[in-house]
Amino acid sequence: MDSSEVKKDTAAVIGQVVEWRRYLHKHPELSFHEEKTSQFIYETLLSFGNLELSRPTRNSVVARLIGKDPGKILAIRADIDALPIQEDTGLTFASENPGVMHACGHDGHTAILLGAAKILSEKQNELRGEIRFIFQHAEELYPGGAEELVEAGVMDGVDTVIGTHLWSPLEAGKIGIIYGPMLASPDTFYLTVKGRGGHGGLPHETVDSIAVAAQVVTNLQHIVSRNVDPIEQLVISVTKFAGGTTHNVIPGSVEIMGTVRSFNPSIREKVPEWMERVIKGITLAHGASYDFTFDFGYRPVINHDESTRFVHDTALELYGEASVELMKPNMVGEDFSAYLQKADGCFFFTGAGNVEKGIIYPHHHPRFTIDEESLSMGIEMFVAAALKMLKMEVSTV
Amino acid sequence: MDSSEVKKDTAAVIGQVVEWRRYLHKHPELSFHEEKTSQFIYETLLSFGNLELSRPTRNSVVARLIGKDPGKILAIRADIDALPIQEDTGLTFASENPGVMHACGHDGHTAILLGAAKILSEKQNELRGEIRFIFQHAEELYPGGAEELVEAGVMDGVDTVIGTHLWSPLEAGKIGIIYGPMLASPDTFYLTVKGRGGHGGLPHETVDSIAVAAQVVTNLQHIVSRNVDPIEQLVISVTKFAGGTTHNVIPGSVEIMGTVRSFNPSIREKVPEWMERVIKGITLAHGASYDFTFDFGYRPVINHDESTRFVHDTALELYGEASVELMKPNMVGEDFSAYLQKADGCFFFTGAGNVEKGIIYPHHHPRFTIDEESLSMGIEMFVAAALKMLKMEVSTV
Amino acid sequence: MDSSEVKKDTAAVIGQVVEWRRYLHKHPELSFHEEKTSQFIYETLLSFGNLELSRPTRNSVVARLIGKDPGKILAIRADIDALPIQEDTGLTFASENPGVMHACGHDGHTAILLGAAKILSEKQNELRGEIRFIFQHAEELYPGGAEELVEAGVMDGVDTVIGTHLWSPLEAGKIGIIYGPMLASPDTFYLTVKGRGGHGGLPHETVDSIAVAAQVVTNLQHIVSRNVDPIEQLVISVTKFAGGTTHNVIPGSVEIMGTVRSFNPSIREKVPEWMERVIKGITLAHGASYDFTFDFGYRPVINHDESTRFVHDTALELYGEASVELMKPNMVGEDFSAYLQKADGCFFFTGAGNVEKGIIYPHHHPRFTIDEESLSMGIEMFVAAALKMLKMEVSTV
Amino acid sequence: MDSSEVKKDTAAVIGQVVEWRRYLHKHPELSFHEEKTSQFIYETLLSFGNLELSRPTRNSVVARLIGKDPGKILAIRADIDALPIQEDTGLTFASENPGVMHACGHDGHTAILLGAAKILSEKQNELRGEIRFIFQHAEELYPGGAEELVEAGVMDGVDTVIGTHLWSPLEAGKIGIIYGPMLASPDTFYLTVKGRGGHGGLPHETVDSIAVAAQVVTNLQHIVSRNVDPIEQLVISVTKFAGGTTHNVIPGSVEIMGTVRSFNPSIREKVPEWMERVIKGITLAHGASYDFTFDFGYRPVINHDESTRFVHDTALELYGEASVELMKPNMVGEDFSAYLQKADGCFFFTGAGNVEKGIIYPHHHPRFTIDEESLSMGIEMFVAAALKMLKMEVSTV
Repeated sequence: MDSSEVKKDTAAVIGQVVEWRRYLHKHPELSFHEEKTSQFIYETLLSFGNLELSRPTRNSVVARLIGKDPGKILAIRADIDALPIQEDTGLTFASENPGVMHACGHDGHTAILLGAAKILSEKQNELRGEIRFIFQHAEELYPGGAEELVEAGVMDGVDTVIGTHLWSPLEAGKIGIIYGPMLASPDTFYLTVKGRGGHGGLPHETVDSIAVAAQVVTNLQHIVSRNVDPIEQLVISVTKFAGGTTHNVIPGSVEIMGTVRSFNPSIREKVPEWMERVIKGITLAHGASYDFTFDFGYRPVINHDESTRFVHDTALELYGEASVELMKPNMVGEDFSAYLQKADGCFFFTGAGNVEKGIIYPHHHPRFTIDEESLSMGIEMFVAAALKMLKMEVSTV
Repeated sequence: MDSSEVKKDTAAVIGQVVEWRRYLHKHPELSFHEEKTSQFIYETLLSFGNLELSRPTRNSVVARLIGKDPGKILAIRADIDALPIQEDTGLTFASENPGVMHACGHDGHTAILLGAAKILSEKQNELRGEIRFIFQHAEELYPGGAEELVEAGVMDGVDTVIGTHLWSPLEAGKIGIIYGPMLASPDTFYLTVKGRGGHGGLPHETVDSIAVAAQVVTNLQHIVSRNVDPIEQLVISVTKFAGGTTHNVIPGSVEIMGTVRSFNPSIREKVPEWMERVIKGITLAHGASYDFTFDFGYRPVINHDESTRFVHDTALELYGEASVELMKPNMVGEDFSAYLQKADGCFFFTGAGNVEKGIIYPHHHPRFTIDEESLSMGIEMFVAAALKMLKMEVSTV
Repeated sequence: MDSSEVKKDTAAVIGQVVEWRRYLHKHPELSFHEEKTSQFIYETLLSFGNLELSRPTRNSVVARLIGKDPGKILAIRADIDALPIQEDTGLTFASENPGVMHACGHDGHTAILLGAAKILSEKQNELRGEIRFIFQHAEELYPGGAEELVEAGVMDGVDTVIGTHLWSPLEAGKIGIIYGPMLASPDTFYLTVKGRGGHGGLPHETVDSIAVAAQVVTNLQHIVSRNVDPIEQLVISVTKFAGGTTHNVIPGSVEIMGTVRSFNPSIREKVPEWMERVIKGITLAHGASYDFTFDFGYRPVINHDESTRFVHDTALELYGEASVELMKPNMVGEDFSAYLQKADGCFFFTGAGNVEKGIIYPHHHPRFTIDEESLSMGIEMFVAAALKMLKMEVSTV
Repeated sequence: MDSSEVKKDTAAVIGQVVEWRRYLHKHPELSFHEEKTSQFIYETLLSFGNLELSRPTRNSVVARLIGKDPGKILAIRADIDALPIQEDTGLTFASENPGVMHACGHDGHTAILLGAAKILSEKQNELRGEIRFIFQHAEELYPGGAEELVEAGVMDGVDTVIGTHLWSPLEAGKIGIIYGPMLASPDTFYLTVKGRGGHGGLPHETVDSIAVAAQVVTNLQHIVSRNVDPIEQLVISVTKFAGGTTHNVIPGSVEIMGTVRSFNPSIREKVPEWMERVIKGITLAHGASYDFTFDFGYRPVINHDESTRFVHDTALELYGEASVELMKPNMVGEDFSAYLQKADGCFFFTGAGNVEKGIIYPHHHPRFTIDEESLSMGIEMFVAAALKMLKMEVSTV
C-alpha cells in the first residue's frame, strides 16, 4: 500500500465528499425512515458505473466491488440515520427537517464510505477478492439495522469487517484504536409511575406521580454509586420524564424512559432486578404503583485482535505513531457488534473534534458537529485497508 | 321564603337542568375559548323571555332580571369553562372534545344557574330590586374571567354576591359553609432547568437536566415541610415535568410548571424567594442553570360575615341543621375573590360526592364526576336566597 | 385586684427572683434528675414560713397556701427541668454542667413561681381558699412529670389551674393568650435503618445504611408536603441521625430519632402508618431493613374558655390592650395538658424575647436566653390572678 | 526452591502461628497505638536468636536476617494495627478491647510474617544477601506508618519489596495476582453542615441541619453516577453522619466523614471541587452553611511488572495454575504504595474466605474473620519467594 497515492486519491475526491456530507446533513431522516437518504446513496453509487448494487432492506444499500481475481472479502460499513433532535448549530447547511438532526456524524460516515467507494471503484482492475460497502439504516434505534442486514446475508462470505465512527472527543487528525471491549451494550427501559391525579391545591387527595417519579430518578442513582462494583462499568440514564400538562392538575402518571450501558454480562443481567427493586420500593413508599419494562439492546462491540492489529498497522503506516491513539472503551452502544458475530473485525474512531474551531459539543447534542478535515482520514483509512488487503502484486515485467 | 314552594319549583325544572348539564359536559371548552358554551347559555336565557341579556366579554353572558319595584341587587355567579384533561369516566355523555373535560363541575354550575334563572324569571312580578345572573368564562386560567367582568362593570350597584361550587369531597345532600377565609390564592410558577444535552451513555459529557430537575422537585418539598410555620397553610405542587423525547439522548433542559397555594400574605410573598433559593442551590450543586418565573394569581376567597350568615340561614331554613356543615378552608383557588372586592358576599359548597355510587374522584381527576342529585340543591339555594332577599311582601287584601 | 399594688410588691422581690433564676440557670439538671433543683426550691419555699410543703414525687415540690376562709382552689404550675444541650451563651451565669442547659426558660418559670409564692405568702390573711404552687419535674421528657403529679393527687379539689411559658418569639412586655387549641401533641419515633457494614472503598459489598437513611429522611418530607391536608397542622422532625464512627468503614446501621407534632387526632393516628410506609419502601428500594417504634406523647394543650377569659382579663387589667396579644397555636408540646384534664384552666405565654438586646434565639437553641425583664410580668400575672380570684372583700369599717 | 520443603517447614510452625494470630486477635490496638502488639512482635522475633532487631518508630519493628554472603535485599512487610469496630464474631478469641477489632486481617499478616521469619531464620546459613522483615504500624490511619518507615530508612538498599493481604472475597486456597494498578488511593473528607438549632416542633425557626445533610449525601451520589467518566473508577462513601442527641431538639450542625477512592490522578484531583460544588449548592438551597476539608491519602498501589512476574511464578510453582487467579483492581487503599516508590515490588492477595464455613463477611465488618487455613499459604509464599531469590546454590561435592 502506497500512503502517498492513497492521500492523493483522497484529495481528488474530498471536495465532492464534503458536498455529499452537507447535503445529507441538511436532509436528515430518522431511523427506519431513511428513504431519501438511501435513494441518494443508491444513485450516487450507481453513478460510479461498476458496482453491483442491492437493497437488502427498504432503506439500506449494499454495493459490491468485485476484484479481477478471486480473493478475500472485506466488508466496510457506514450507518446513515439521524436523531430526533432539534438542530441548534447555525450551520448554513443545518437540518431542514424540524426536530431531526445528524447529531452523531452518520452524515460523515456515509459521505466517507461513498468517497472510498468512488476511489476504489476506479481501481477495480488492481484488486482481487471483493469489497462490500454496507450502507446501513437505523443504527440509532433498537433493534437496529445491522441485525436485519446480517439476517439478509450481507455478511455471507466476509473475511474481515471494518467500520469507523467520527468522534468529536478525539481531535481531528487522530485515529483511535481499541483492542477488545470497545463499546457498551445499550439497553433501554420504560417506566410508568402511576399515582392518582387531582387538583394541584389538594395534594392530600392525590398520589403525586411527579414527586414520586422524581424520587425514583434520585434513588436510581444509588445503583451506580453504591450497588455495582466500582471496577465495573455501568451507566443508567433517565432520558425522558414526562408528566402533566398544565399548572393546576397533578397528573395521574409520569412516563419515564432511559438507557443502560454495560460491558460485563453478569452486571448487565442484574440491572433490571436492581432497578425494579428501587422502583418498587419508592412507589410503595409513597402509595403509588408502576409498570416497568427493560429491553436488552445491542451486544457490546468487542474488537477482534487480528483485525484490530491490521487496522492499527494501517493507521501507523498512513500517519505515524503520533497520530494514532490507543483509547479506553466507551459507554456508547453500536450495532456494529452484529457484524462482529459473523467475521473477524474492528471498529475504530476517526477524530472529528477541534477545540480551536469550537467543535466541542458531545455527540447527540443540538450543537454537535464535526471538523470536516476528518473526512479525508476516514476515506484514507478505508482505502488503505482495502488496498493493503486486496491489492494484487504488480508483476513488473 | 317558602321552602316547599322552592323545592316544588325546582322539581319542575330539574329534568331539563340535567339535560343542560349533560349537553355541556359533552361539549366542554377550554378557558377563554367558551364560544359554543356561551352561545348555548345566551340562547337558553333568551328563551325565558324576560331577561335583559348582555355579553360583557366575548365568552361570558350576564342576564338581569329586573323586579317590579326598586330594591337591592343580588348577583349570582356560575363559571362555565372546562379543563385540559382527557376524560376517563365512561359516561354516556362523556366529553366529545379530546383532551378537554368538565372535570371541576362547571357544567353543573352553569346548569344550576340556568335552572334558577328559569324559575326566578317566572316570578318577576313578585320581586323587587334585581337579580343579576353572571355566567363567567375562564375561571380555571389566570388572569381569569372574573377580573375582566368586574372591570366591565358587572358588579356595579350590586349589594350582595353569591356563588357555589359543586364539591365532590362533600356528600350530596349537604351544604358547606365557611366563615372568613375559604379558598386560597393560587399562584403559578414556571421553571426551566438548563443542563447540557448529550449522549445517554456518556453522562459525564453532559449536565443531566432530568437528574437535576428531579432533585429540584425533591428539595422543594422542604419549603412546606421545614421552612413555613406549621400553623400556616402552604401548598407547592409541581404539576408538569417535561424533559427528553427518546431513550438515548440526555435532554439539555427540563420544563417545570406548578401551583402555589396560601392564605397568609406574608407567607405568600416569601415563597418565590424560598423557591428560587432552592432552585439556585440545586442547579449550582450540579453545574446547571435555570430560568424561574413566579406569577401571583387570584386573591384568596374570604367570605364576608353578613352574607355568610345570610347564606347559612337560607341553608338551615331549606334543609335543617343535619344537612349544613361548617367546613374548614380549602387550598383550591377561585376568582370569585374578584367579586368579593366589590360587594359583600359569600361563596359556598354544594355537596356533590356519593361514596355509594362510586362518585369519589377528586376535582381535576380524569374520572371526576358529580352526583346529579346535587343539582337540585344548588338551584334551591339560589332561588331561596333570591326570594329571601327580594320577594315583596304580599298584601293580602 | 389593685394593679399598682401587684406591681409594687413584684418590684420588691424581683432582685431576689433574678438571683434565684441565675442560680438555677447555672445548675441545670436533666428531666427526672432534678435533685438539687427541687431541694433548692423546697428550702426556699420553707424559708417563707407559712406554706405547707410536700414532695409528691422524688423531684417535685408542692406548696399549699391556705387562706383564712374557705374558698376556691387555684393551682399554679412551674416546670423545673433542663435540656441535654451544651450551652453556648457566654453568660456569666452559664451552665456549669457540661451538656446540660436551661434552654427553654424553666429556670425562669421556677423563679417566677417562687417570687409569686413569696408575695402571696405574705398576704395569707387577706385570702380565702387555697393557692397550690406546683413545681413540676420532667416536662421535657415523656412520660413527663405532670401525669405523675396528677396521679399523686396534686389536682384534687382544684377549681382552676394556670401556668405560663416564657416565650422568646414574643417580645418581653407582652402577654400572649390563645383560646382553645394552643400547643400540639408531641409524639416521638425511633428508627434503626439496618444495612450491611463493610469497607468504605467497597460499597457493592455492603448495604450502605447512611445512604439509605439519608433517603429515608428526604422521603419523609413528603408526608407533610404531600400527604396531609394542608389545612391541618403536622410537623415531622428527624432530630437525631447517628451512623458510623470513622472514615473507612460503612456502618451496618444508623440510629434515627425524632418528634411528630399535631392537633387533630385523626391526622395523629395516621402518621405512624404513613411514616412506616415510607421507611418500608425506602429500605426495600435499597435492600436494607428497619426497626421502627412510634411513641404517642402528651395530649395537646387545649385551653378552656372560662379560664382563658379570666387570664385574658387579668392581663388586660394589668397592662392594657396594647400589651396583650391574641396568638395562633403552636407546635410545641407541653404536659400542662395533663392538668387540663382535671380542672378548667389556661396556659399562656409571657413574652421573653428582645431583638434589640440580641435575645433572638429559639427555644432549645444553645444560645437561647430570656430577657429578665419578663420575670416581673410572670410574677405579676400569677399574683394578680390569685388576688382576683381569692382576695377577700375588705370590709371597710 | 523446593516447594515440598517449604510446605514441610510451614507445617512445622503453623500451630504456633495460629496461636500468635489468636493472641493478636484478642488484643487488638488502634493505629499509632500498637504498643503491646509491637512489644509482642519484638519479643517473639528476639526469641529466634539471630535477627538484627530495630524499632524505627515507636510502634514498629524491623528484623534483618543477614545472609552468609552478600546479595540482594528482599523486604517483606506486614501491617499490625486494628480498627475502631466493635467485634461481633462470637469467636472464643474475640477482642478483649471494647470497640477495637482486627477486622481486616492484620493479626494474620503479623502472624504469617513471624512464621516466615522463624523458618527463614533457621536457614541463615543457606542464604546470601538480606531479608528485611518490616512489621509496620498504622496502615489503617492516614498518614500511615509506611511513609514514616520509608523516611526512617527501612527501604534503604532494598531491591525488591513484597507483601500480602489476606482477602476474604477470595477463597482460601487461592493466591490473587494483579499486574499494574491494584489498589486505589484512599482520600478522606470531613464536612460540617451548619444550620441553626432549635425546637423540634418549630422547624421554621431553625435551619434543619439533618434534613440538609441528608440531601447532601443524596446529591453526592450524582458525582459517581453522572459526573465521572463511567470508564474510570471512583468511589465516594459517607461513612459517618452524626447530628443530634435527643428527640425534640433539631441540632445546629451535623458532622460528616467519608472516603474517596480512585486510580486516575486527573479524576482524583477533580473530586474535591465536584464535592464542594454539591455541598455549596445544597447548603445554599436550604439556607445552611458548611466547613469542608479534603485530605489526600495514600498513593494508589501500582505493582511493578518484574516483581509481579516473580511473585506470580512463585505462586505457580507452589500451587499450580488452578490455585492462582489473575484479579481485577480493587478500590481498597494501602500504604504499601509508599514502599513501591522506593523499590520494584509486588503486593498480592492470599485467599482467606470460605463460604462453606460461613467466612463471608467483608473486610471492616463486625463479623469479619479469616479462614486460618490461609495462614499457611501466606507463610509459604514469603518463604518460597525468599528462597527463590536468595538461596545459595549448594555445591554438592
